[in-house]
Amino acid sequence: MALFTKEEALNYHSVWRTGKLEVVPIKPCRNQKDLSLAYSPGVAQACLAIAADPELGWKYTNRGNLVAVVSNGTAVLGLGNIGALAGKPVMEGKGVLFKTFADIDVYDINLNTKDPEKIIETVKLLEPTFGAINLEDIKAPECFEIEQRLIEIMDIPVFHDDQHGTAIISGAGIINALEIAGKKIEDLKIVVSGAGAAAIACSKFYVALGVDQANIAMFDSKGHIHAGRTDLHPTKAQFAQKKAFANMAEAFKDADVFLGLSTKGLVSKDMVKSMAKNPIIFAMANPDPEIPYNDAKEARPDAIMGTGRSDFPNQVNNVSGFPFIFRGALDAGSKKINEEMKMAAAKSLAALAKEPVPVEVMDMYGEKDVKFGIDYVIPKALDFRMLEWEAPAVAKAAMDTGVATKTLDLQQYKKDLRTRIDAAHKRIKDYVASYNYDF
Amino acid sequence: MALFTKEEALNYHSVWRTGKLEVVPIKPCRNQKDLSLAYSPGVAQACLAIAADPELGWKYTNRGNLVAVVSNGTAVLGLGNIGALAGKPVMEGKGVLFKTFADIDVYDINLNTKDPEKIIETVKLLEPTFGAINLEDIKAPECFEIEQRLIEIMDIPVFHDDQHGTAIISGAGIINALEIAGKKIEDLKIVVSGAGAAAIACSKFYVALGVDQANIAMFDSKGHIHAGRTDLHPTKAQFAQKKAFANMAEAFKDADVFLGLSTKGLVSKDMVKSMAKNPIIFAMANPDPEIPYNDAKEARPDAIMGTGRSDFPNQVNNVSGFPFIFRGALDAGSKKINEEMKMAAAKSLAALAKEPVPVEVMDMYGEKDVKFGIDYVIPKALDFRMLEWEAPAVAKAAMDTGVATKTLDLQQYKKDLRTRIDAAHKRIKDYVASYNYDF
Repeated sequence: MALFTKEEALNYHSVWRTGKLEVVPIKPCRNQKDLSLAYSPGVAQACLAIAADPELGWKYTNRGNLVAVVSNGTAVLGLGNIGALAGKPVMEGKGVLFKTFADIDVYDINLNTKDPEKIIETVKLLEPTFGAINLEDIKAPECFEIEQRLIEIMDIPVFHDDQHGTAIISGAGIINALEIAGKKIEDLKIVVSGAGAAAIACSKFYVALGVDQANIAMFDSKGHIHAGRTDLHPTKAQFAQKKAFANMAEAFKDADVFLGLSTKGLVSKDMVKSMAKNPIIFAMANPDPEIPYNDAKEARPDAIMGTGRSDFPNQVNNVSGFPFIFRGALDAGSKKINEEMKMAAAKSLAALAKEPVPVEVMDMYGEKDVKFGIDYVIPKALDFRMLEWEAPAVAKAAMDTGVATKTLDLQQYKKDLRTRIDAAHKRIKDYVASYNYDF
Repeated sequence: MALFTKEEALNYHSVWRTGKLEVVPIKPCRNQKDLSLAYSPGVAQACLAIAADPELGWKYTNRGNLVAVVSNGTAVLGLGNIGALAGKPVMEGKGVLFKTFADIDVYDINLNTKDPEKIIETVKLLEPTFGAINLEDIKAPECFEIEQRLIEIMDIPVFHDDQHGTAIISGAGIINALEIAGKKIEDLKIVVSGAGAAAIACSKFYVALGVDQANIAMFDSKGHIHAGRTDLHPTKAQFAQKKAFANMAEAFKDADVFLGLSTKGLVSKDMVKSMAKNPIIFAMANPDPEIPYNDAKEARPDAIMGTGRSDFPNQVNNVSGFPFIFRGALDAGSKKINEEMKMAAAKSLAALAKEPVPVEVMDMYGEKDVKFGIDYVIPKALDFRMLEWEAPAVAKAAMDTGVATKTLDLQQYKKDLRTRIDAAHKRIKDYVASYNYDF
């Protein structure tokens, strides 16, 4: 199953140069003239221009293509609260993904504090440096307030990927699964295992898509979230149901959707068997889902089953979202990533899954005949077409909702995107190769 | 005189991609396996290793070669308080210089605040992200407290280049000038024009070199700093002289050294004429010195004259310092850049100026027969040998004073440095060229 050994993973992070990111000057530095343009005295012209008109900061600095990946390391992947330093490899890795999929530059910003107020203040102070903020691996419930407050006080997009990334990708899957299962969104009965950042955000996003909030049965480590509980943070309490379920198995009966954002082994075959027809099961615990794919399909061959894994159908992988969502937001000069933009992202992914899949994409997974159906409701995570589907959709939503500061010709933008990313891939590939290291 | 037009300078900052820095993944991202090493699940191995032993943060992240260039834009070049955003081109430019001269990666961190407490808190929170902190273009007197406090509370080097860079380079010039002029350091009478960050730091550094502090006559915009003044911040007050000079001209009589860190036109030929024999004049106001080079030499052909300009002898340029000082500090795993390391940097530059100058270096300046003497007491700013002279000297001082965490074989280190930087130059040059833009 494992694609690599522990040694390979550590080697990847240390060989030939420590870490995974390097900062490279992109203007010529051949001689004294070049250096006097890059620094004193030439740089003064750019400074003076920006001082006179701050909007020119987007023209004369790298800000417009630069995202801060901000974390305090309190909820890193499945590893929990390992701290800011130990989380840094993940944040650098996020930079690798941003660059690889969308040619977006990232500074990883690892903050040594658990205090939400300090994180809010620090990120706000950093505003002149960046074009957008990606909050990452900050634990709930602090992450909700941090994101909400920053959205309010900052003039650039702020997006907590652990919340909205999963919501958007799984939301795309839900949209298509409903069509295949012939269900109406307002009728869905949903069981949610987990009540962390992603579970709360997914539930809210589904409600925005049309789900009746009263039909969501959410479970945290202490059991069902219901009106009788007195130990609930407001972010959980908003999902408290009037009727209390004794356990998750009880809630599974006749449920249409299971959303797993917890840990492996919490769901049994019997529970799945008790679900309504064409059940939608997104068991996204990593690396092992709440119920193994094969077990769930054995129990219910009619299930539309997704996991976080690339080796099974319907992978819910945030990389299908954040690179293209930020790409569209930055290119539209958007001041926010609002609900309409998130919705546009989900709908563009849902629409793309209905298109014929290129052979190159199937080849990446060693698969054939991938087509719209219960085993393909979400585009493959490495499907290169997401760039041209999702980024323009997000940019359009930004323009339509008045948060964009630029007006893009979307047809032309779509064409240019492919050229830009292909050129970036070539540059980066050559750069890595220039280390002349036989990896 | 001008090497370029305003349009060229603005074009340099905006053409083909805005700004001057790009963040590039340096490990392969060819396929799903590579991506699973860069991010989940492979990255977890690096995270767990660091969580178990924080020292491994130096091995599995880019931290060990990553410097934060931190500014709030309150004292940018000669432009003054233009703010964090307008200062960003300078901070990116500093990143270009760090990378070009020493293969050091830089994230520019532009903070939108004038409050020293907030800067201190923010930079401290950023500690897990970086290997060292370069404070830049933060105005006096706040810069002194910010640097001092950060040095005390951080476990990585903190260095305010505006202070110490100028002190170290001009200090190297002073060391050599003394020898040529046949003066003893403890006898020097010094006039300092300016009382900002650089002037204070230079004066303190000269005192560390052996100057008698009582012999320093410092002038701010209100005149001579003397014991009768009641308007002095403690950083200036420490240089208050007992006897008051009515004006700077009076202080110039029989002075041995003039240090200009103020503005053009403050020094006349007559003032220079009144100085002691073999006067040492470092008139470093940018871009126009306190007295033009030709005027000073006309008044006193025996003067050892330096400026901030590359088109006259003895250029005092910080780029002769910070890239190599940080290079040595990072490579020695130093927790500080202490006084001994700064002194070692100055002495290594002074020693280098006594070596024969390679033809390639003279060619860069269109000069011939550059040799040790009154017109060459400081190595040329583009002299590539500084890397191998200064970085090992700084690393050695770190090891000798117990702030290093690594033990380098200095001979081997010196050899490897050249190879590393040459390889970086080639990689970067090819990367810039890959944009296929005819600049």
